Amino acid sequence: MFIGAQVSLYPMTSEFIRVILSGLEALTPYRDSLRIETDDISTLMVGAPGPLFDAVRDLFARTAQDPAHVTMHVTFSRGCPGEPDEPACRCETLTRAQGTPLAQRQAEALAAVQAAPVLGVEIDVQFSLYVLGQDRHMDEIYGCIDVLKASGTFLRSKNFCTRLRGDAGAVFETVRQAFLRFGPAEGHVTIDLTASANSPSPR
Amino acid sequence: MFIGAQVSLYPMTSEFIRVILSGLEALTPYRDSLRIETDDISTLMVGAPGPLFDAVRDLFARTAQDPAHVTMHVTFSRGCPGEPDEPACRCETLTRAQGTPLAQRQAEALAAVQAAPVLGVEIDVQFSLYVLGQDRHMDEIYGCIDVLKASGTFLRSKNFCTRLRGDAGAVFETVRQAFLRFGPAEGHVTIDLTASANSPSPR
Repeated sequence: MFIGAQVSLYPMTSEFIRVILSGLEALTPYRDSLRIETDDISTLMVGAPGPLFDAVRDLFARTAQDPAHVTMHVTFSRGCPGEPDEPACRCETLTRAQGTPLAQRQAEALAAVQAAPVLGVEIDVQFSLYVLGQDRHMDEIYGCIDVLKASGTFLRSKNFCTRLRGDAGAVFETVRQAFLRFGPAEGHVTIDLTASANSPSPR
Repeated sequence: MFIGAQVSLYPMTSEFIRVILSGLEALTPYRDSLRIETDDISTLMVGAPGPLFDAVRDLFARTAQDPAHVTMHVTFSRGCPGEPDEPACRCETLTRAQGTPLAQRQAEALAAVQAAPVLGVEIDVQFSLYVLGQDRHMDEIYGCIDVLKASGTFLRSKNFCTRLRGDAGAVFETVRQAFLRFGPAEGHVTIDLTASANSPSPR
């Protein structure tokens, strides 16, 4: 199993380099557990979903504490058939989810969101979950959407994606649960996510 | 069939509102053929792939003419089972692709890229193509990657995505061909795309 993300941070300020470099300090605690490589478009992070989602969350929460409007785009992926097996990506939650009925996975996902830490940073997110390589991929998607609606972070459905809003702790836990609990444990699942904070647009 | 995109433009300048509003003028010629709705995170565009990709291309090319570093994220989607049928989205290229062998679709895709207009704006793109609801989704992905490599816009493969570079005309035509010619004509296909121009990072 290979699990990772391509992450891009976009501060809407002429001082964007300073804001990005300051945000990257939030990754320091995760550099031992993740492989992190940056190019001119995005930063690749490879590792288990525990540190992976925590790192992405902390990167955005840190950057959102600057007054500038900032957005982040993340492509999360697990189980892509084109990627090598990576032992550091192993995840007990995924292994246990294999063969667990949908209702139980939904209950576990909601419990995890309720237990999420409060970071004190309000954010907006929209994301799409893609379960690949399955004839009946929409059953898992609809099962996930039920959890999103009950998560306390659900804002509304949009064409092609779902909007969440709330504390960065609960919002990123909701996204991690969507990524881990839906679609086959050994399957190919991806997420296309946009986060936003400090937007001048009316919310 | 329902076809559309969620589009977000990110100018990395404190004058981001001016740059976005100026870029939006590039959408004027397409307002009759696309449904366009904006909220605080993204702009929904719904319509046939002809005007849809042209509009997204022109929006980014216009914005990239400003000296500021600018990026754009787009989620393209066709055939999502959760969306209603929309007659304005009908596309002859998609209809003809149904049942056409992979080799012929690849040749038609390359011919379309070669015929793309030159806009005189150099851009970088990375994107992922997702073919949903199919057991053997990677066959179509690998068939598409062969076309990308021969397109003249291919830069390199990355984890989870492919990098393109070149004139905005050829690059967006390459992405449109990936979207239209791979995966079943009536199937659910999405693209997660990031475009970048005027980056201060070494390319």
